[in-house]
Parts: sequence; C-alpha cells; structure tokens
Amino acid sequence: MGLIVQKFGGTSVGSAERILNVANRVIQEKERGHDIVVVVSAMGKTTDQLVSLADEITSKPSRREMDMLLTTGEQVTIALLTMALQARGYEAVSYTGAQAGIVTESRHGNARITQINDEKISENLAEGKIVVAAGFQGMDEHGEITTLGRGGSDTTAVALAAALKADKCDIYTDVTGVYTTDPRYVKGARKLAGISYDEMLELANLGAGVLHPRAVEFAKNYHVPLEVRSSMHEERGTLIEEESTLEENLIVKGIAFEDQVTRVTVCGLPNRLQTLSTIFTTLAGKGVNVDIIIQSVTDQDHASISFSVKTADLEDTIEILEKNKSMLNFSKIESEKGLSKVSIVGSGMVSNPGVAAEMFSVLAEEGIAVKMVSTSEIKVSTVVNQEDMVRAVESLHEAFELSGRKASIS
Amino acid sequence: MGLIVQKFGGTSVGSAERILNVANRVIQEKERGHDIVVVVSAMGKTTDQLVSLADEITSKPSRREMDMLLTTGEQVTIALLTMALQARGYEAVSYTGAQAGIVTESRHGNARITQINDEKISENLAEGKIVVAAGFQGMDEHGEITTLGRGGSDTTAVALAAALKADKCDIYTDVTGVYTTDPRYVKGARKLAGISYDEMLELANLGAGVLHPRAVEFAKNYHVPLEVRSSMHEERGTLIEEESTLEENLIVKGIAFEDQVTRVTVCGLPNRLQTLSTIFTTLAGKGVNVDIIIQSVTDQDHASISFSVKTADLEDTIEILEKNKSMLNFSKIESEKGLSKVSIVGSGMVSNPGVAAEMFSVLAEEGIAVKMVSTSEIKVSTVVNQEDMVRAVESLHEAFELSGRKASIS
Repeated sequence: MGLIVQKFGGTSVGSAERILNVANRVIQEKERGHDIVVVVSAMGKTTDQLVSLADEITSKPSRREMDMLLTTGEQVTIALLTMALQARGYEAVSYTGAQAGIVTESRHGNARITQINDEKISENLAEGKIVVAAGFQGMDEHGEITTLGRGGSDTTAVALAAALKADKCDIYTDVTGVYTTDPRYVKGARKLAGISYDEMLELANLGAGVLHPRAVEFAKNYHVPLEVRSSMHEERGTLIEEESTLEENLIVKGIAFEDQVTRVTVCGLPNRLQTLSTIFTTLAGKGVNVDIIIQSVTDQDHASISFSVKTADLEDTIEILEKNKSMLNFSKIESEKGLSKVSIVGSGMVSNPGVAAEMFSVLAEEGIAVKMVSTSEIKVSTVVNQEDMVRAVESLHEAFELSGRKASIS
Repeated sequence: MGLIVQKFGGTSVGSAERILNVANRVIQEKERGHDIVVVVSAMGKTTDQLVSLADEITSKPSRREMDMLLTTGEQVTIALLTMALQARGYEAVSYTGAQAGIVTESRHGNARITQINDEKISENLAEGKIVVAAGFQGMDEHGEITTLGRGGSDTTAVALAAALKADKCDIYTDVTGVYTTDPRYVKGARKLAGISYDEMLELANLGAGVLHPRAVEFAKNYHVPLEVRSSMHEERGTLIEEESTLEENLIVKGIAFEDQVTRVTVCGLPNRLQTLSTIFTTLAGKGVNVDIIIQSVTDQDHASISFSVKTADLEDTIEILEKNKSMLNFSKIESEKGLSKVSIVGSGMVSNPGVAAEMFSVLAEEGIAVKMVSTSEIKVSTVVNQEDMVRAVESLHEAFELSGRKASIS
C-alpha cells in the first residue's frame, strides 16, 4: 500500500480502445490497495494535427499561442481516461496542469516547473479518488498556460511523484524496459532489471529514447524511484534508483549509439585562450548542438579544433563559421559525414580502470577505426564510421558480457 | 471610437481559411479605431467529434468530464485566431473562459455566469491589444471548468460586453440579420433594421434560431446593444435595443413558426386545484418541454387539459402520463400529430387592441383552422395543421405589411 504515479505516453492513449486499456492498468494497481495519480500525454497524433492546423494559419505562431493550442491535447485525454475509470465504477477526477497546481517559469514552449501546489490532489487521494493529471503543461504565476517542452509528460509525472512523496513513479511506454542496447539492432540485447540514475542519464542523453534526461535528472534530485515498463504487457520493467543493487557485478550496463554524426574540423586557429569559447558560443547562439569536442595544438601559434554535430546541422554550422571567419580567424574548415557514435555506459567504470582501453582493443580487433573519443566517469564514447556501427555495438555487447546468457530477472 | 465585442460562431470559424477571414473582420473594426474583444466558439464539427470520442468510452460520461473535454474546442479556436491576428501584425492575446475571468455557478454542463473579473482584459485593451476569449466556458469558485450550455458563446459575448460596458456586441452568424420571417419559406421576408429585446426574445424563443434567448435576456438586463450580422457579407445587420426607434410604425415585427408540433389532451381529470401543477411538474421532472397549455372545465367535477409538445417528445409524454395514471386520475389521453405553431410578434400590439382578432380573421379568410391559441403582451401564437403552416405565415406576412414593399434600411 502506497502512492504510485503512473505515466502513459501518447501511443498508450492513442485511441478510445487504448484509453480503456490504460484504465485497466490503473484499476489493477488501485485494486492492489495503492493510491494512484495518473499522468497522460496527448492522444497519438493529436499534437501533429494541431501543429498542422497552426501551420495553415501562419508559419511563425507565437509560443504563447502554441502553448494555448497544444495543451488542449492532454486535456482531451484526461477527460476521456477519467470517464473510462468512472464508467468502471471508480471515483476519479481530471485536472489540467494548472488545476493540478503545476507552477512553472514564464517561458512558453519550454518552461521549467518551479513549484507544485498539491493540496487539491492530496485531498482527492485522501478521499480515495484516482487523480488523472495532464502531462506536459502548467501555469505560470500570472495565470498563463505554459508547456514543459520535450519529455514534458515524463517530467510532470516525476515532479508530481516528488511533491506527493510517492513510493514509485511508473513510466509506461511502448517498450518493456531499458535494454543493454537497442534490440532492433542487436539480437542478444537484454532488458536490465535495474540501473542507476546516472547510468540512465547517460543512456538517455545518448539517445536510448525511452525516458527524457530531464525527467531522470528530476528523479535523481528528488530520489524518486522510477520504473520503465510496457503499457501492453504485464511483465516487470527496469527499475531506476540511486544505486542499483541489481546486477552490480556488471561494469558496463548498456551500449548506446546513434548515426548521422558528422565531424567538423576548424584548422589554423590562433592558439589563444578565447578561441574555444568564441567558437562554441557562436555556434550555441545559433542553436547548433555540439557533442564531442577535441582540441589539438599544431604548433606554438596554431591550433585546430574538431567537434561532432548531427549531420542535419552541418550546413548551418559551416555557414555560421564562415560568416564569422574574420572574427574567428581560421584558415579552413574540413568535415567528414557518414559517422556514428557508439558509447558504453556503466557506473562500475569508476572503480575499474582499463575499461576504455578494453573498448579500444575490442574495436581494434574488429578492425574498426576510432575517429574521436570522449569520456566521463561512467561513459566512454567513440566516433566510428557509420558502416561499422552495428558491428561495433555487437562486439562490445559481447565483450562486456551483456548478452542474454545471463537471464533477465523479470 | 469605442469598445466592440464581436462573437463568431462555429460555422464562421469552421476551418483555417475561415479563421483567417474572421481575422480580417476583426482587423477591419480595429482599424476603425475601436477596442475589440472577440468571442469564438469551437470550430465547426469539433464538438461533435469530441462527443463521439466520449461515446466510444462510455454512454454515460459525467458532466464534469464532458466540460473538461468540450472546452478544448474553443481553446483551439482562440489560439488559432490569435495567431492569425499576430501574423497580420496586430497585438493580440487569447484567454480561456477561466483566464477571461468568467466565473460561473458550480453546475457542470449548464452553468450560469455569476461574475466577470475583467481586470486582465481591461488592461490588455488599454495596451491596445485585441483580446480573443473562449465562448461557452467559465470556471466556478473552486477552480472547476464549467460550460454554459446551449447558446453559451452568445451569452459569453453579451456578458463580457456588459461587464466591460462595451458600446456594442456584434453577433456574427451565417445569416445577415433578423428577418420578418424565415426567408427560406416566405419570398417577401425582409431583414429588419431594428427590433426590441422583448420582440427578439419572443422570436428567439419561437425558434427563429439566430440568437439564443438567454443571451438576449442578458443583453436586455444589462442594456447591451446587439447587432446580428453576417460573417461573410459587409452589409449592416439587425440592431437589437431597448426600444427600437426604427420602423416603429410596424405593429407586428416578425412571424415565427415551427412544425413537428403535437397536441395532447388529457381527458376526465378531477377538477381540483392541484391537477394542473401535478401534471406539468411530473412532465417537467422527466425533461418534457410543454409549450401552449389550455385548460377547460367539462362539468363541475371534471376538467380536460390540452397542451402542445414537440412531436419527438410525444411517446415519452404518453408513457410518463400512463405511468402516473393512478396518481393523476384521468380517464384517457388523446393526441393529434401533424401540427405547426405560427406566431406573430411585435411590441406594438400592447397599444393596438384587435391584433389577435385580425390574425384570426386572416387565417379564417384563408380557411385555416386554429387548433390552439396562446397570447402574451407582444405575441399571439396559434396552432394550425402542418400543411397550412406556410400559407398561414405568407398571408399574415402580407396582412401585417411586413413584405418587402418597404425597403430595408441597410
């Protein structure tokens, strides 16, 4: 008996039929004696439809009005799910973000939650009601409707769980948990029973996609135990906690990868203190996300800087740099498309020297050239040719003993 | 220069293209130097779509959750219209009912407005902004989202006009104004330049359909001048005011009519004081709307009561009466389908005796039998056979000099 916050994403509530299915999952936990708060996203393609309506009106809608428009999506879902619960004979009540007491900054389109006034929800829970809250949205202190940006519904769920001191926050999604690597690419990929916040954060940032990094960070800061699990299957998912006590003998927990990476090298830069900050401030100011950065000094006066960007950002990157050529004072720009990033993640690395070295050996044995390297305490990322990506992941998955020979706990 | 509240219904905002057209109408008035508040309904078929979604979930959705669901409709429209105005370079801001300060009773599905907190809108108007508010919706004192029921958007517009002391409330619709009678049936039907609140109220109640009676009543109570006009054409519409100064020589202003009327007669009732109230309380309790009522005493102990209902309600009516036969103590029920109601309306009747008599003469000359009669100070209603309806309207329209011989002022 405790309080559980359940979050269901857009696919899980994509039709009336699926909403009825979600109602079943909610009732299941309720019947186990738990208090339940449900956080839902907009139905499947609703958001896309609203965006294209706006597009028919203007190519540059204001952020405030986009928030006004898009927040109707979750409002529809909370009403329908609450009707479904009521039709099954359960007391339930729906709340928009504003009504749920989600207070945010006054930044439309990408606001952060600053406060949660949970009196109303707490009262309803005490009365035995199931509370259904709209994800992704809130209200600022002036009564303006705001949205939380990407991963917003995950963040709403975790924030409510933190405010209400929930025992657990279950993130229902279309996969059954967090895997050692993407099972669509690697046969031996296996669901993890447990993983730490930091490991999940690295995996989430590296594009594992199940959970938004922001929500994981929030969960870590407020010590909210998360479980990523399937909305379609009964099986247990992956538990995300401070220190995962499960499978702790694994040094590497997961392998993340992404393609469409390009390396850009800016050559013949003056070897000055400000060079690095000037280049990346310029790029960030124009919205280009730079990932791995490597600086090398060619001679006493000159340096070159390599960095990786998404291939889709390459044109913008070069245009911005060329525009600022006189200020940045470089000689030329080189770029190499067709690359991928492959990363190993695991908090065991901190106490196990030589993990990076083992990674490089494995790749060398496979004849895979490493173009760039970046490390953190619990992660090693490498950039390799795109055609080597899957082979790199598979061989690392095998070498670090992640493959299915050890049965999943679930 | 003044403040105008403009209201556009669901058909007028039925697509992105139409919303852009509405933006033009708004800008036109703004450019004349007026401050503008726009009230809009949900786009065309949105409400129907939402209702059928709810229907897929449950056949008996709670009123609270229906309000939660349906209010998203207007919220989409306010966002899109505001984007359209902004795209044209005008400062504009959208508000949900709650944000616009529309406070209502705590009755979901059919709440009345109890208060309007207009500080925010007044501030925005002072800053030169166009305010776009969601019709049909409000919030009760507990922060619950409510809806105003049928004709809700008209009521929102009039209520805002009253609170803001607007100079005028323009109701844009798909007809060009209020007509002497329905132009689809009577060729000579002619748009009225002006009409009084009371006359409009009788016409609205009699099914003229352009404007909800509740909104007219509100306008009358708060002395808000209304204009019913077309969202597609430029021409002036019909002005509705306390005492219409236009066309005041007309005794009859308009002729309303509706078909699908049935007369029900309950025979052999005990001639007691409570009989009337018992019958109609029983019917009202079951949601049957009774229109004209006629009581006749057959002998000292017995009375019969005739009343008219919509033909669609006939089955329910008979079922309810039969169920309560022992309590009501009647001998039998008779009913006559295939009837219509034809009414003449005009505040000039009060000071002109004999208008009813003239009506009956006209009908008699046409050989039309009058089955029931009901009168008020500014209205005479008759029930006639359905096949006589259009001929009755045409002959009355001619007899009371409503036909187009006198040109409309617009």
